[in-house]
Amino acid sequence: MMTEQCGRKRLQIQSVQEDRFKTRIDTLVVEEPLEIRLDPQSASLAVTMRTPGNDFDLVVGFLYNEGIIQHKRDLISLRYCRNTKSAGGKNQNIINVNLAGNTDIDISKLQRYFFMSSSCGVCGKASINSLRQRGARSVEASFKLDASILYGLPERLRSAQKNFSATGGLHAAALFDPQGTLLRVREDIGRHNALDKLIGAMLLAEALPLRDSIIMISGRASFEVMQKCIMAGAPMLCAVSAPSSLAVSMAEAFGVTLVGFLREHRFNLYAGSGRVLLP
Amino acid sequence: MMTEQCGRKRLQIQSVQEDRFKTRIDTLVVEEPLEIRLDPQSASLAVTMRTPGNDFDLVVGFLYNEGIIQHKRDLISLRYCRNTKSAGGKNQNIINVNLAGNTDIDISKLQRYFFMSSSCGVCGKASINSLRQRGARSVEASFKLDASILYGLPERLRSAQKNFSATGGLHAAALFDPQGTLLRVREDIGRHNALDKLIGAMLLAEALPLRDSIIMISGRASFEVMQKCIMAGAPMLCAVSAPSSLAVSMAEAFGVTLVGFLREHRFNLYAGSGRVLLP
Repeated sequence: MMTEQCGRKRLQIQSVQEDRFKTRIDTLVVEEPLEIRLDPQSASLAVTMRTPGNDFDLVVGFLYNEGIIQHKRDLISLRYCRNTKSAGGKNQNIINVNLAGNTDIDISKLQRYFFMSSSCGVCGKASINSLRQRGARSVEASFKLDASILYGLPERLRSAQKNFSATGGLHAAALFDPQGTLLRVREDIGRHNALDKLIGAMLLAEALPLRDSIIMISGRASFEVMQKCIMAGAPMLCAVSAPSSLAVSMAEAFGVTLVGFLREHRFNLYAGSGRVLLP
Repeated sequence: MMTEQCGRKRLQIQSVQEDRFKTRIDTLVVEEPLEIRLDPQSASLAVTMRTPGNDFDLVVGFLYNEGIIQHKRDLISLRYCRNTKSAGGKNQNIINVNLAGNTDIDISKLQRYFFMSSSCGVCGKASINSLRQRGARSVEASFKLDASILYGLPERLRSAQKNFSATGGLHAAALFDPQGTLLRVREDIGRHNALDKLIGAMLLAEALPLRDSIIMISGRASFEVMQKCIMAGAPMLCAVSAPSSLAVSMAEAFGVTLVGFLREHRFNLYAGSGRVLLP
């Protein structure tokens, strides 16, 4: 029997250690589908598995990253779907979006055009080129920071994670200023969702493109993570774990500083090292 | 300047630790897009970011999980796309699939129907119901094993991972028999891809559905991971990290044994505990 509370569920499990076992209550991270529908047709745009919480941020970040919206003014409304069968009359897993203007979207193309627009077939280089065609520009932020600023970020990220310590199962994406002050953090079972939530929150705060600031993510820096950072104009991405080859190539192509394996008092610089003042 | 070798790339980076820095060569995990096309029309079915290697396994596992194929005999051929512009005349990032029979696939529906087939809108319960509608059946395997068998799996998985120790950036999916013997392992930057590769390899070996065997994955047990295990008929899933709430619900619904936080001499049992003989 599970009981639920904002992003977590509690469940009785059996815990085994060194041949001894006990029954105890464990806290799980919640994973539920979220469907994004476009008004007025209520056309289904996407479904993603996510951890409930900051759902509007997630939807906005998704729409921004897909190139569907650029500014807060492109949005007329966001609302949970009305559903008289659910408690409270709302379905918390469906969000209806109403876009401003005559936004004509070919839904069938959305998931595909990113990779398909290149004449040479799919490859890493084509992915970078098509990101340029979607309007991504090289980062221009001129800020630099001392390496010592980076040392403090992992601990600050962990302190800010409300659910991780309880569940051990959540990714986080955070925004820091050049002095290492935490500006905002978002969590999700999916690393890309946590980043969409963070970027969506910044769009709603009318703070895009990001300029003199640092995005930090738990886990790895993949193509998808780097793509979202570039679209948001972030000049620096720090990851707790390894970057992929393609993430490094993209960072080089767009002038992003890419820091990997950022842990207490150590990190690796994979691209854009000029922004980090080494001792 | 990157140099490449089967699934890895080497790059000169700057490594900073305790205010000292050095320039050294780092090994990165390769991430490249793979496009799956259906012959004879050469229609694009999907693009996934993956680590090159065992690409045919990945494609077959993807097709199986999407319900497009059930058996090896459903496949006439798999081949890399011919491309006279590339070295060797092949494009290693495009695979053409030729299916047996009059397989009529509505490509536009593939990505969506899983969540959309429920009349109550999207929710965890609907996801489970629609998995049933796709033909997933409860697991019937009757095997049981001693808890001590599980203790040895993490170390065996790590030993078998060729690229992880070099790059620190790869997920793995492995298949073990009830005695804890490693049968097969596959790696990828994406956990779901590693699992697709593993299941695809088993389909090509005509060993599906899996019966008395254990799937182990690095990382977390999410909805997507559990879904693939259920479709493949695996009676037990072990994860190094936490499961999600939905993964637990699915395991309960389909009779799968779900083990989380499996590390040296400890683990948690989230569902189907009857298969594990506790001390």
